[in-house]
Amino acid sequence: MAARSEQEFWAGEPRALLRVGPGFRLADVDPGSTPGFDGVEKDNADEALASGVDVLSDLQERLFANSRSGDPRRVLLVLQAMDTAGKGGIVRHVVGAVDPHGIRLYAFKAPTEEERSHDFLWRVRKRLPDAGLIGVFDRSHYEDVLVGRVRALAPEAEIEDRYGRIQRFEQELVDADTTIVKVMLHIGSDDQKERLAERLERPDKHWKYNPGDIDERMQWPAYQQAYQIALERTSTDAAPWFVVPAEKKWYARLAVQHLLIDALQRLDLSWPPASFDVEAEKARLAAT
Amino acid sequence: MAARSEQEFWAGEPRALLRVGPGFRLADVDPGSTPGFDGVEKDNADEALASGVDVLSDLQERLFANSRSGDPRRVLLVLQAMDTAGKGGIVRHVVGAVDPHGIRLYAFKAPTEEERSHDFLWRVRKRLPDAGLIGVFDRSHYEDVLVGRVRALAPEAEIEDRYGRIQRFEQELVDADTTIVKVMLHIGSDDQKERLAERLERPDKHWKYNPGDIDERMQWPAYQQAYQIALERTSTDAAPWFVVPAEKKWYARLAVQHLLIDALQRLDLSWPPASFDVEAEKARLAAT
Repeated sequence: MAARSEQEFWAGEPRALLRVGPGFRLADVDPGSTPGFDGVEKDNADEALASGVDVLSDLQERLFANSRSGDPRRVLLVLQAMDTAGKGGIVRHVVGAVDPHGIRLYAFKAPTEEERSHDFLWRVRKRLPDAGLIGVFDRSHYEDVLVGRVRALAPEAEIEDRYGRIQRFEQELVDADTTIVKVMLHIGSDDQKERLAERLERPDKHWKYNPGDIDERMQWPAYQQAYQIALERTSTDAAPWFVVPAEKKWYARLAVQHLLIDALQRLDLSWPPASFDVEAEKARLAAT
Repeated sequence: MAARSEQEFWAGEPRALLRVGPGFRLADVDPGSTPGFDGVEKDNADEALASGVDVLSDLQERLFANSRSGDPRRVLLVLQAMDTAGKGGIVRHVVGAVDPHGIRLYAFKAPTEEERSHDFLWRVRKRLPDAGLIGVFDRSHYEDVLVGRVRALAPEAEIEDRYGRIQRFEQELVDADTTIVKVMLHIGSDDQKERLAERLERPDKHWKYNPGDIDERMQWPAYQQAYQIALERTSTDAAPWFVVPAEKKWYARLAVQHLLIDALQRLDLSWPPASFDVEAEKARLAAT
């Protein structure tokens, strides 16, 4: 039986199905759903992911290759989610499947004292991908309107102001040839409880657990509301949000992989032409 | 048939077989050999590499986990080679198989004007891995005694001085809990000719080719001599060199993977104990 191509696994387009548009309500998204995926078996999902790895790797290499001859384009994947939703798995299985040289990954933590002394976008600007790279933000400037809002880490007027500043910042990146793919991995409160319980059960997972995780969990409704507001106000045509149901980890990985493939395919990346005389170089090489 | 464990593929230890010791002569190393590998088939090599991926990933995660509770240890893989020897393949297939969050990869290019205005180790210090990470140098401070020597990019006395400064620099890193694994991938001049020819034949490889590659190739004997000197003078007990025959790409990948596994196993990494009261946290979680 011939292997199925990556596209054949999709009956509908994640780009359309998962996009945050007018009237979007986070509470209406079923974290256990698998929009657009034409298949339900886990094996089937593994096959689809493997098939996508080759497609994504090829596209990433083309993006990188073009940058060597001056193409300024780059991609930025922004990952946001509640704890345990599976950002790590996306980084490991989707991002990790392409050439490390083509990736610029950064995991944002609570800001340092120096970072706090600057505008909230200051530290973010320092981690943007160069031309030809796929940047990956594991958490991002959105923390400043998520935990920032829930924990009132800045005055209310400042938080309100940030949505517009984020929009303008992202527009500026898009104007400078960055394709932005913003993904929220969406799980339910019960899923999180189960996953935190697993971390507590397994000694090899204890290092991933922090008592503060429960403090955050106790603010679940406030976080959902903060996400709803952020998604509504910052899902623009230039930089739309995609909410990816993530109870089924295999689906979340496939969907993010597909969103990345889709974004790269739209760049219509051919191999750059040789910047030298190929025949002349063959002759030079032969003479060595 | 039970899967073979990573160790079972080795009849001899790469750490001993590939190490640069007293009396080492680069010219005596056969680039097509496969020291210590118990098997010759390509399929067999794929199986061995896949088996090593799980071992290496587990060790990397332990290293990372321990750093979260204050363990200062880290690893630095230094990759050096003539063009086309396969550094990219090592990064893609060995380094790329572990969690990207655990890797700090940096590809050193020709130094910028700012970098040239500082000591040659200045830019290298900025790219060292943090605790818990596996740093990977694709090229390194050794360029300053390789191309630096062949192209006379610094006065002879300065080049001579650098070997000792490199030794002291690496000793300093080792004293600060860095395990250094230095690898030279070794190919023959004919291998390189073939691989450059392939880049010229394939339009999807043109971007990897640079006419300067031939200029460097024409200095092959001078580079081999510069490597011989560097290997001799900087293979110390604290930071030994390993010369990995790399004509067979599958062997080079397996050998580097094994050297990394070996280095990490020597760190004797158990999972860090929980820094919190597990039972109390279970109760807190249950109450949410």
